[in-house]
Amino acid sequence: MELAIVFGGASFEHEISIVSAITVKSILNYTPVFIFLDDEHNFYLIDEKDMNARTFSSGSYKKMKHLSISHGGFELSGMFGSKKLDVFAVLNLVHGSDGEDGTLASLFDFFKIRYVGPRIEASMVSFNKVLTKAYAESIGVKTLDYEVLYRGGTNIVKTALPVIIKPARLGSSIGVSIVKVENELEYALDSAFEYDDTILIEPFIAGVNEYNLAGYKTDKFVFSMVEEPQKNEFLDFEKKYMDFSRRSIVSKADVSESLEKRIQETFERIYDPIFIGSLIRCDFFEIDDEVYLNEINPIPGSMAHYLFDDFNSVIYDILENLPRKDKISTGYDYIHSISSAKGK
Amino acid sequence: MELAIVFGGASFEHEISIVSAITVKSILNYTPVFIFLDDEHNFYLIDEKDMNARTFSSGSYKKMKHLSISHGGFELSGMFGSKKLDVFAVLNLVHGSDGEDGTLASLFDFFKIRYVGPRIEASMVSFNKVLTKAYAESIGVKTLDYEVLYRGGTNIVKTALPVIIKPARLGSSIGVSIVKVENELEYALDSAFEYDDTILIEPFIAGVNEYNLAGYKTDKFVFSMVEEPQKNEFLDFEKKYMDFSRRSIVSKADVSESLEKRIQETFERIYDPIFIGSLIRCDFFEIDDEVYLNEINPIPGSMAHYLFDDFNSVIYDILENLPRKDKISTGYDYIHSISSAKGK
Repeated sequence: MELAIVFGGASFEHEISIVSAITVKSILNYTPVFIFLDDEHNFYLIDEKDMNARTFSSGSYKKMKHLSISHGGFELSGMFGSKKLDVFAVLNLVHGSDGEDGTLASLFDFFKIRYVGPRIEASMVSFNKVLTKAYAESIGVKTLDYEVLYRGGTNIVKTALPVIIKPARLGSSIGVSIVKVENELEYALDSAFEYDDTILIEPFIAGVNEYNLAGYKTDKFVFSMVEEPQKNEFLDFEKKYMDFSRRSIVSKADVSESLEKRIQETFERIYDPIFIGSLIRCDFFEIDDEVYLNEINPIPGSMAHYLFDDFNSVIYDILENLPRKDKISTGYDYIHSISSAKGK
Repeated sequence: MELAIVFGGASFEHEISIVSAITVKSILNYTPVFIFLDDEHNFYLIDEKDMNARTFSSGSYKKMKHLSISHGGFELSGMFGSKKLDVFAVLNLVHGSDGEDGTLASLFDFFKIRYVGPRIEASMVSFNKVLTKAYAESIGVKTLDYEVLYRGGTNIVKTALPVIIKPARLGSSIGVSIVKVENELEYALDSAFEYDDTILIEPFIAGVNEYNLAGYKTDKFVFSMVEEPQKNEFLDFEKKYMDFSRRSIVSKADVSESLEKRIQETFERIYDPIFIGSLIRCDFFEIDDEVYLNEINPIPGSMAHYLFDDFNSVIYDILENLPRKDKISTGYDYIHSISSAKGK
């Protein structure tokens, strides 16, 4: 089963994706095909030996083989016509825009390419944090109270300080601020609006219990261990970034069996059925013995491999159970009936 | 400004899309380029003279020119290499899957093709009626109470009869039933589950006031007249289908100025900003003097041209004001800083 890892993308998390791909490469017990997507939406085939940060930061990937996407996969175009790349499935490792906003999912679906990653709908409810809130509400999963501000609208924040301010559509803490005093508010709003026209404001709860859980479903759910992320108020971009290149397995959080069970049940409610085909990580809060959803990461950094005892089996398991999109049958019954009604 | 109309698609509403395209052709005061998407996701260039239902129902489109999608537009491939099709923008007229679920939007965004139609996010919150409810809730727009059932889950309906049962993701009344007596329930649920794994159940309110409004926003909002759809309990597929081929302008609904204003305000709240770039029709209920959102049609049948006095100006106006996707700038700062930290 030849697996292709697609990474890069026109995304603020472009670099994170490169680091993720290099990290996953070091964990897998076989060599996949590497496909780099640059910020102009060109695909390149990258040799295993070139899978290092310099290839991309120096721009030398531009001299590598260009690929085009077409029905069933990717094509190498050369002097003597084009040649199909032999790929069983794609692992979508593009974080942020392109990868997590449904764009690549749509491309893979349209061109009938099997892939590991969130489908369009799953992408949408994870990518836009306002929709995450709405989705959680609709399936009975608790989230923190929030308010939404739009660029060009009012800048009046009703939530009591301290608050955490987030662009609606970015991950990896980009544009996120914690505001404790009134006079820091304006700057924090401006910073967030630099990245998005919609921002989300939530109460900031210092020292809240945070737990992360990764998992997926084939015929049954498979969960990672529960992780208690280390925190430094909140993880900033650079910190998280280093995190994405983590290679060793973390230790299990000290949670009661009952809490672990409730976290898993909440994960199940979120995941099923729209996340089928993807390995996701959900980040939760525990407040007054209740589980709250904080964020859904439908393509977690380096696939959250460090939360699983045997990541290679996880990937095989998902690949062997990828969902198929039902073929929609089209017909011309109504056109025929109208034509006969018209006597044509 | 050369406009291409893309229609067809792997969708249960494939035929409706063909009828829509033929109807829009008859309304436009110039001749666009016609691009047919078949249910295998192949694009064909259709000559104006072949724009009739028979071309598609007979399969004779298969002998027409094949197009491939690539950066900036479509390409005609011929014996002497490929040739770019000269298109300023695309009008997405694919109803249902492909067109309204974000797939084509993603393709057009990815390949940097200007288009009229809902963007990915807008597609998602219209296409999945459960997300429509969640979205409406998040922006403070009322909708009817509802419950959701999943295929394979419980089939117990809590809502009091009569109810209306809808597949979560289809338009044009496909798979929709009204159930008035208990023993019709099972059959109705089965019919809906034939089309979707998720179904929505709402109370059915006989004789409720229904109003449709189409519109779009450039630097300001432009609204159609308010229409009161004729109803026969509810419009079934065949009826709506005929409706899509309607060529004459309908007459304005008899609504008070105050109600029209409230309908328009609700439309604005729904539309702005995620529907920018599209002309949509929202279907509303009026209950006890309150406006409720029923459905969002982000690609209404034949573009709801019959609700506008001057549809040609409408199309020009939208084309001249198409949103541009901001280029996301990527860099390699963190990779550089990590490399220096590592002393490489």
